[in-house]
Amino acid sequence: MKTAELSEKILSGDRRALARAITLVESGRDDHRVAATELLDLLAKSGRQALRIGLSGTPGVGKSTFVESFGMMLVAQGLRVAVLAVDPSSARTGGSILGDKTRMEQLSRQKAAFIRPSPSQTNLGGVARRTREAVALCEAAGFDVVLIETVGVGQSETVVAQMSDLFLLLLAPAGGDELQGVKRGIMEMADIILVNKADGDLKSAAMRTCADYSGALRLLRKRPQDPEGYPKAQTVSALQEAGLDSAWADMKTLVEWRQDRGHWSGTRAEQARYWFAEDVRQALLARLKTPWAQGRMTELSDQVAQGAVSPTAAAQEMLKGLGVAG
Amino acid sequence: MKTAELSEKILSGDRRALARAITLVESGRDDHRVAATELLDLLAKSGRQALRIGLSGTPGVGKSTFVESFGMMLVAQGLRVAVLAVDPSSARTGGSILGDKTRMEQLSRQKAAFIRPSPSQTNLGGVARRTREAVALCEAAGFDVVLIETVGVGQSETVVAQMSDLFLLLLAPAGGDELQGVKRGIMEMADIILVNKADGDLKSAAMRTCADYSGALRLLRKRPQDPEGYPKAQTVSALQEAGLDSAWADMKTLVEWRQDRGHWSGTRAEQARYWFAEDVRQALLARLKTPWAQGRMTELSDQVAQGAVSPTAAAQEMLKGLGVAG
Repeated sequence: MKTAELSEKILSGDRRALARAITLVESGRDDHRVAATELLDLLAKSGRQALRIGLSGTPGVGKSTFVESFGMMLVAQGLRVAVLAVDPSSARTGGSILGDKTRMEQLSRQKAAFIRPSPSQTNLGGVARRTREAVALCEAAGFDVVLIETVGVGQSETVVAQMSDLFLLLLAPAGGDELQGVKRGIMEMADIILVNKADGDLKSAAMRTCADYSGALRLLRKRPQDPEGYPKAQTVSALQEAGLDSAWADMKTLVEWRQDRGHWSGTRAEQARYWFAEDVRQALLARLKTPWAQGRMTELSDQVAQGAVSPTAAAQEMLKGLGVAG
Repeated sequence: MKTAELSEKILSGDRRALARAITLVESGRDDHRVAATELLDLLAKSGRQALRIGLSGTPGVGKSTFVESFGMMLVAQGLRVAVLAVDPSSARTGGSILGDKTRMEQLSRQKAAFIRPSPSQTNLGGVARRTREAVALCEAAGFDVVLIETVGVGQSETVVAQMSDLFLLLLAPAGGDELQGVKRGIMEMADIILVNKADGDLKSAAMRTCADYSGALRLLRKRPQDPEGYPKAQTVSALQEAGLDSAWADMKTLVEWRQDRGHWSGTRAEQARYWFAEDVRQALLARLKTPWAQGRMTELSDQVAQGAVSPTAAAQEMLKGLGVAG
């Protein structure tokens, strides 16, 4: 299919064209990259924007159930919802956090919903660019909300936060007074913390955990992009579909406040700058990703660790091998 | 002076030779880099190691007074102490956190002490490598303790922690129940938190602040390189020279525990691997540091922020200009 034709179909809301375009941006082939860039340039002219919601949570907090319930609620309100994933683990396991669509059984059957599993990639940099491009494709396809989910591992939250308008952190009720070891850096990215499983036996534990996080959030530095009372923590039950409407109301309040004050467009502009610089950096560092370079890096790193050679001397050796002046 | 001669003088403890060698590693000239690498290789054979203590604290917490009192205590115990600095702000201001030696009046006059101001550099990567090399020079010169101090700004703590055996965080007593906005990531790096100014009117505030941090440290994940009770918080008064002996005793306890269990050498090996990989990455990214590249990056970044061009397309444009395939 010609790029122009694919573009037209995506703009008209053709789901198969969208799926095909995402496959295109995920491809590592050079001719595919050229076509993908052309396609994204064409689609950018539509100027369509969705609300991009980043969602992070460790395995077991009920992320899939939340996406299912929250997504169904949005669809019931007449909104079109796309779900994408950034999964740093899929590179290793070959698996995918959204591979099992049966976990979002209802949502995956909705015409107004589009669920796309995380691609298997060899590095987070690659996953980031492809997901960012998939978000742009979903926006052009007319979705109102794009949910970008990730597991709470390593730097994937930063990646997702850098492409989201809102960042949600989903947590499970904690036993005791421990804050689940959530890194402060992650908390500082969150706009809304949702303590899930506020149902049945866990309800009171969820409320206590929520109160703990509310307290912890108050200790954080105030951010210019937040109105009074944000970031906030609240309880939800994805299973019982409780608290989702109030969480959605909070998200809308936050979005409106930011749009009125220019933070919305300001953040998007900063994110675009970030991704531009990041793309350039990743391309320069790509020389370390070849099999030869990876093997040589490991060899030299082992020698450095054993004290056989200094980091400086090993680096010069490596750069010589790459044909770069040290 | 020949490199071999300089090496001999440093090994014999000649302070002027040491100062000269640090100037050499700080130089950006190509022939100086070659000589510096040669020198470091020669000196590495001595196998001498100092205790490397990283010290971070924001301006006003009394860092200079602490270094003066703590350094004088170590000198009184017959130890030789070198003080280096990583100052990310000096690149901008041209100033230097250790430029004013009069703030360490006694220590700077000791024969067993060596104080070296932070070099003015254009980027933290460069400062990091040069400081790391200065540490190696001080070790070869026979110092027992190398204090590497930094201000609590940006990523300079990470840089210092990655070249230290122990990382100290110096804090001032806080008013109220607020944890001074210390980022959790910084707290997670600290081995010992020292609440300074536990004297006069501030004594009880210092004790309260110390209790707050003790509580916060207990919420952190346990690290394999820590014995029971670490990381810990304690009060000191650099002014009244109080608590310094107990802090030093704690440091020695921690160091012995880590040496006995292999964490000491394990951490040093990991740090060497880190710096090797970092040197290689920095050299690859150096192509973005030329005046032309910086100017072009700014231009393209502005276009991206205005939405005139996509991050992907702008990155390809930039890479074309650098002669790199996108």
